[in-house]
Amino acid sequence: MATGRKTEYAGIHLIIEFWGGKIIEDAKKIRSILIKTAKVSRNTSLGVKIHKFVPYGVTGFILLAESHISIHTWPERNYVAVDIFSCGRNSQPYKGLDYLKKEFQPEKIRVQEIKRGV
Amino acid sequence: MATGRKTEYAGIHLIIEFWGGKIIEDAKKIRSILIKTAKVSRNTSLGVKIHKFVPYGVTGFILLAESHISIHTWPERNYVAVDIFSCGRNSQPYKGLDYLKKEFQPEKIRVQEIKRGV
Repeated sequence: MATGRKTEYAGIHLIIEFWGGKIIEDAKKIRSILIKTAKVSRNTSLGVKIHKFVPYGVTGFILLAESHISIHTWPERNYVAVDIFSCGRNSQPYKGLDYLKKEFQPEKIRVQEIKRGV
Repeated sequence: MATGRKTEYAGIHLIIEFWGGKIIEDAKKIRSILIKTAKVSRNTSLGVKIHKFVPYGVTGFILLAESHISIHTWPERNYVAVDIFSCGRNSQPYKGLDYLKKEFQPEKIRVQEIKRGV
């Protein structure tokens, strides 16, 4: 993908794990969170897809001009897996993470930053 | 998401980096590769989204009942970023990786396995 200025890596990928807090199970809310995460991290949406499982769990992604954001919830584990993978010099993935913390209010967080395409 | 047997982690996430080889720029082909990767890794598709950039680069995502697979290409870097994130005891993410190697024929590969939700 065209990423503007040539940097030493193609993009930053945040591997985010939330435990406890609010486990959001409303598919419309997850859609709105994905769209807002893309916006606050200064990424551009190319399309969103959400699926609600029976009896529980929601999975969704937003494809970005700058890569992708995904959210998968496991209510039975009090666990939510989020990925923010964004390229381009304008992307602000940590602003997306800050917004997600406000929405999910996790009790425990682990974040791993991976530079992709180094 | 409901993952069957309770394991010590929610899912396996393969962070895959390909350099060189075939940089596939055909959006239909990327769609077909995503669907086949899901199939050979014994995952179930919930929907696919592909976007072709101008002048170059293709980005795509397949949402799975078992999480997701993404492909983002950077022809200007001879680089392709792939993620296979799958949960469930039947998933075979490394079979998906083997298939992707055949399609992209990379000259150099890096694979990082992350256990999510440990």
